[in-house]
Amino acid sequence: MRATVMYGAGDVRIESVPDARLIESTDALVRVTRACICGSDLWPYNQMEHSETGQRMGHEFIGVVEAVGTDVQTVKAGDMVVSPFLWSDGTCVFCQEGLQSECLYGGRYGFDDVDGGQGEAVRVPQADGTLVRLPVAADDALMPSLLTLSDVMGTGHHAALAAKVGPGKTVAVVGDGAVGLCGVIAARRLGAEQIIILGRRPDRIALAKEFGATDVVSERGEEAVERVRELTGGFGAHSVLECVGYEESTVTALSIARPGGAVGRVGLPQQESIPTTLTTFFDNVTIAGGPAPARAYIEQLLPDVLDGTIEPGRVFDRIVPLDEVPDGYRAMNDREAIKVMIEL
Amino acid sequence: MRATVMYGAGDVRIESVPDARLIESTDALVRVTRACICGSDLWPYNQMEHSETGQRMGHEFIGVVEAVGTDVQTVKAGDMVVSPFLWSDGTCVFCQEGLQSECLYGGRYGFDDVDGGQGEAVRVPQADGTLVRLPVAADDALMPSLLTLSDVMGTGHHAALAAKVGPGKTVAVVGDGAVGLCGVIAARRLGAEQIIILGRRPDRIALAKEFGATDVVSERGEEAVERVRELTGGFGAHSVLECVGYEESTVTALSIARPGGAVGRVGLPQQESIPTTLTTFFDNVTIAGGPAPARAYIEQLLPDVLDGTIEPGRVFDRIVPLDEVPDGYRAMNDREAIKVMIEL
Repeated sequence: MRATVMYGAGDVRIESVPDARLIESTDALVRVTRACICGSDLWPYNQMEHSETGQRMGHEFIGVVEAVGTDVQTVKAGDMVVSPFLWSDGTCVFCQEGLQSECLYGGRYGFDDVDGGQGEAVRVPQADGTLVRLPVAADDALMPSLLTLSDVMGTGHHAALAAKVGPGKTVAVVGDGAVGLCGVIAARRLGAEQIIILGRRPDRIALAKEFGATDVVSERGEEAVERVRELTGGFGAHSVLECVGYEESTVTALSIARPGGAVGRVGLPQQESIPTTLTTFFDNVTIAGGPAPARAYIEQLLPDVLDGTIEPGRVFDRIVPLDEVPDGYRAMNDREAIKVMIEL
Repeated sequence: MRATVMYGAGDVRIESVPDARLIESTDALVRVTRACICGSDLWPYNQMEHSETGQRMGHEFIGVVEAVGTDVQTVKAGDMVVSPFLWSDGTCVFCQEGLQSECLYGGRYGFDDVDGGQGEAVRVPQADGTLVRLPVAADDALMPSLLTLSDVMGTGHHAALAAKVGPGKTVAVVGDGAVGLCGVIAARRLGAEQIIILGRRPDRIALAKEFGATDVVSERGEEAVERVRELTGGFGAHSVLECVGYEESTVTALSIARPGGAVGRVGLPQQESIPTTLTTFFDNVTIAGGPAPARAYIEQLLPDVLDGTIEPGRVFDRIVPLDEVPDGYRAMNDREAIKVMIEL
């Protein structure tokens, strides 16, 4: 079969790889119909050292179940399914707590004999715990929005929950990438009164406004902090969604939190320690977040996608076939595209 | 009147100072009957540079109202009252949210013409927002426990809330000082199932056990982390109370949090940034805490003190008259005493 393999920074290839197949009795074999490129895929795209063997890529996909192992009970051949970006068994203590991203028996796509999502098919381990059946046909118009449930929409939702977004609150979203835009959707869905997006690219800002952003701050650094304070009566935002991961964006996020507020971090941190100051302590600012338990959120968010209440699929502004995935990486990396969907 | 003044590291004196008196119409004049020395007073006791004018000390006290300004309505002469360690107006947006420690019109004792608590009398600004009447007589046996509501018990409670302690949870308390001991009381009161105290001084550990600690970890650093993991099925604690503030204790606190868990920080941080690693992010560990809104917690905790459900006053293991406060500082600093009460 054909799949995406990265060999180093800027070196993404579509290659023939061994066909995906069932190995464990708890596996499902899924024929991928749609996948996408993640902002986190851009980190290796910029930094990966050259590898002789290459790294299989992709962790967001929707597809049709082709076969299941003998112990799989919740999905069967022919089912349309979506996978969260991590696989999980659904029964361990963390899965039971709704924190499937910490599953004791789970793992990542593209590693240890598990296929990446940016390819024709995937062996999905722990299929019962991982996959969610979708009550739609393969050509359904909702497909882009359903695909975001695999990662980006769940991640924006996680940022909002970690930042304690709730009715009537003031929210600031740091970053106008696909995660930030989904953070705006999540904040509005959870009842935020004011939603300030920090970003500067016109197409993204326009989409953020359609998603519910009430204010835009295009400044950066200290100026951005000042501007947010002006917009929030001098106090800062109750809830701040950090959707970038850079040191500068994290400093900004912490600086615009209101005393007693919370910062939800979902941008993959590019530094070990949290670049905070004593103000965070003296202001009783909570710092939370991490990888989203997307599996738990699929069930929470699916009804709102199905009835059109939220349309996170609008973050996809480019569609490519599998062969053009390398150019999709380039386009996302050059900020030509917000997020790229792959149609198979 | 006589009051405690610090002139530099190790230099605490009892001196004659101008009598406390009403200045604003919202003031109360309180004759102090009991005060105490705080762990945070030991930071300047160790580090303060020499000052010609000196610094008035103390922010925890109980006393009798002697006079009130014309705008004070909730307390009157003769009332027995306790003050939280910060004064606050009770009406600003933060006070209304129960975060009186962030009051827009509040402040600290010992600064800007406001007396310190370790003296014969105190001018209490914003008396209506600050003081809480106590339905007891000045010689009541509950006085030590009531005095802890001014700071140390509220601070332990704040750590527990920030760390999301709840019924059935596993809690680790880093530090066996008076705050850590009150953290144990708070954790038990909130329904924790397992309470691990990290400390090594026999008298404090004994008290922690009486307060509800189920396990003791006397190791430090990596060994302590390993020991806590052993005691928690390999996972770490749901809730960690950081009651010290050193870099090492903070690293330990972050390292023993279970994935999805929370660290409540109340120890005054001795470093600007939070000494964390990417594990905190990948494990979805929440970091919260700061100065406790003790004013809010007085009302929550007072009933349990009055009916004897909790006995935080047992953290006082030394009582001194005002003249011996300098030796009280020495005793606490030398770890001869857990916490020193001042009787006037």
